[in-house]
Amino acid sequence: MAEFSRLSGGVTFPSGFKAAGTHCGIKAGNDDLALLVSDVPAAVAAMFTTNAVQAAPVAVSKESLKSGCFSAVVVNSGCANACTGESGYASAMAMRESAADALGVASENVFVCSTGTIGKPLPLEKITGALPDLAQALSADGGAAAARAIMTTDTVPKECALTLEIGGKEVRVGGMAKGVGMIEPKLATMLAFITTDAEVEPKSLQSCLAAAVNRSFNRVTVDGDQSTNDTVLLVANGCADAGCLDEQHPEWHKFCEAVGVVALDLAQQMVRDGEGATKFVTITVKGAMTPDDANLAAKAVANSMLCKTAWFGGDPNWGRIIAAVGYSGARVNPGMINIAFDGVEAVVDGCMAPGVSFEALESVFAATSFEIEVDLKLGQYEDTVYTCDCSYEYVKINAEYMT
Amino acid sequence: MAEFSRLSGGVTFPSGFKAAGTHCGIKAGNDDLALLVSDVPAAVAAMFTTNAVQAAPVAVSKESLKSGCFSAVVVNSGCANACTGESGYASAMAMRESAADALGVASENVFVCSTGTIGKPLPLEKITGALPDLAQALSADGGAAAARAIMTTDTVPKECALTLEIGGKEVRVGGMAKGVGMIEPKLATMLAFITTDAEVEPKSLQSCLAAAVNRSFNRVTVDGDQSTNDTVLLVANGCADAGCLDEQHPEWHKFCEAVGVVALDLAQQMVRDGEGATKFVTITVKGAMTPDDANLAAKAVANSMLCKTAWFGGDPNWGRIIAAVGYSGARVNPGMINIAFDGVEAVVDGCMAPGVSFEALESVFAATSFEIEVDLKLGQYEDTVYTCDCSYEYVKINAEYMT
Repeated sequence: MAEFSRLSGGVTFPSGFKAAGTHCGIKAGNDDLALLVSDVPAAVAAMFTTNAVQAAPVAVSKESLKSGCFSAVVVNSGCANACTGESGYASAMAMRESAADALGVASENVFVCSTGTIGKPLPLEKITGALPDLAQALSADGGAAAARAIMTTDTVPKECALTLEIGGKEVRVGGMAKGVGMIEPKLATMLAFITTDAEVEPKSLQSCLAAAVNRSFNRVTVDGDQSTNDTVLLVANGCADAGCLDEQHPEWHKFCEAVGVVALDLAQQMVRDGEGATKFVTITVKGAMTPDDANLAAKAVANSMLCKTAWFGGDPNWGRIIAAVGYSGARVNPGMINIAFDGVEAVVDGCMAPGVSFEALESVFAATSFEIEVDLKLGQYEDTVYTCDCSYEYVKINAEYMT
Repeated sequence: MAEFSRLSGGVTFPSGFKAAGTHCGIKAGNDDLALLVSDVPAAVAAMFTTNAVQAAPVAVSKESLKSGCFSAVVVNSGCANACTGESGYASAMAMRESAADALGVASENVFVCSTGTIGKPLPLEKITGALPDLAQALSADGGAAAARAIMTTDTVPKECALTLEIGGKEVRVGGMAKGVGMIEPKLATMLAFITTDAEVEPKSLQSCLAAAVNRSFNRVTVDGDQSTNDTVLLVANGCADAGCLDEQHPEWHKFCEAVGVVALDLAQQMVRDGEGATKFVTITVKGAMTPDDANLAAKAVANSMLCKTAWFGGDPNWGRIIAAVGYSGARVNPGMINIAFDGVEAVVDGCMAPGVSFEALESVFAATSFEIEVDLKLGQYEDTVYTCDCSYEYVKINAEYMT
């Protein structure tokens, strides 16, 4: 696997992208409106929430996707514009129109995202009023400002950037994301934007995104809840002038790997900033009979409230882990299951490992990041899911984040 | 539906049952060993956890069930005897043998249950040492003592008793249960014992139990986790001398209803005592296309961490409820969903109800018990699930309940 060094920067790191963020007044204090534009019409791939209840901006962005061309995306935080009926849809369309006007581009090439409280009407005039100035503020250094403006309960902005060579030329990939709650691995339950100055044939771009999302945003979970607004965009504007990539290109896999690295990095940043999280936990299930079995077992552990609270307490409670594997629906032979914590064997053949020291297990769980490996010893498939613990702070954040 | 008045009493309320509880030393302070016996050999029905990882006492009780006859059940708390391998199975068998010896009954008619920490070896000698005295202490007033001895993180014992007439004779039904965490509606994730002095044909007794469990223990959830030790026993000893009941008996449905009332009452007591719970929430989904759809949607809301923390905060956040319905897998038309809180309409056709007062909704959520009704308006099926909120205390209990 190719190695990529992560660089500082985000969505405006690749050539030909500009961004900006501002405070338009939806939220009390922090910035709440972002623009990301490509200097030239770009190819775009997108994935959206699989929730049956989808927000108005998701419906509008799905319309924009039909044009197959990306000029810009406008994003507001503080209001999800979800469950807002026909007037919500009209507001999302007006938000798209207003951004297109401010930028002088065709509105069908403009995407719309909203994130925040469900059910409240979108304060459209605040957005449309702020867009002309925001368009003026666009800059090639604006990625960080945009990453801040899309945050809700996030405590830190999430950005990633790297370079690779395609045909001897430098190609750049950048990204930003938001989302620390309502995070569950049924598609990507957050907003994420990945940009590249590579030129990519559109169908190949969509398959590249699908593969990257499957191994990143679909492998993280904070609380098992799934949002109504999740959107991931991958935009390729060709400004690196490195030739057109498609699935037949000899360096296609290297490109996909680079996009995958950015997606996974952003996804892990989301979990590390998970609401109230104090620990980052990697759960690998191997030896499964099928890929689905591996995923079911890993997700069951990752979403178990009893496991998550034990991790918060620093308790190497393997009983809750094996119980979650047992009810996951994955095929298991309880008497064959092995469990190791950062390589320290805790369970062998379904029972406490002989001679295991409780202190050794406890010291693993005292760290802020550790790995749990479950070996079912039934087959050759494995899967890895990233999650966090559940703390008092998670309850506090979600009990106090009032409608 | 017949009305039954709940009376004080528990498993020894029906004639011909005795029970006792004691402290044998598995736990630091509280009682941890219980016996429940029938004076005469009784018919028995049972349901066990569907977790693939099953504790040794579950395996032993499944053996006992083959005899079709109940003399006694011995229950310890403080140690689950789960994931303990062959020696754990041998310990559970020895516990059964020891109880049978102390009581002078055949060991294949004795059931065994354990509840507590997973993975620790059963302190068998403490149990076998205490059983002779415990057998001596058995009494027809011992139901309450047994109900206390089976508790783990429960804060109150859970008992229920009622009477009904069959063929003009009084028949009694009683029950006890434990379980406030690892509670999820995939079978009954706890221990529950229901006794009756009716005489019941064994196959009918099993179908009666299955129906009762399906509408009670399978309809409650605290945290979505499922235990390795869940067991529900329904024991019918015939001591009321009211004739033999079976599915053809004219008063069969009345009897099943009475058992169902006891099961539901115990299940609701479990949720009210849910770990850290401050609110008891009834979730009804109606208008579903199928019974499964209704159940999926109700369970998704009941298990949503975002909903549960909002309820703890007294926040009438319907956005999280409709989002959970949306990802539940139930077929929904988002634009048709109605949601009411204790009869106050919050959502009509997928949007905030016109003229709804936030204060009215907030006052519903300020109560310690309220109902959420979701109407999908697509069909005729409905389901009801009972759950609780998620508080700081839930996290505290489960972070500090060390292995």
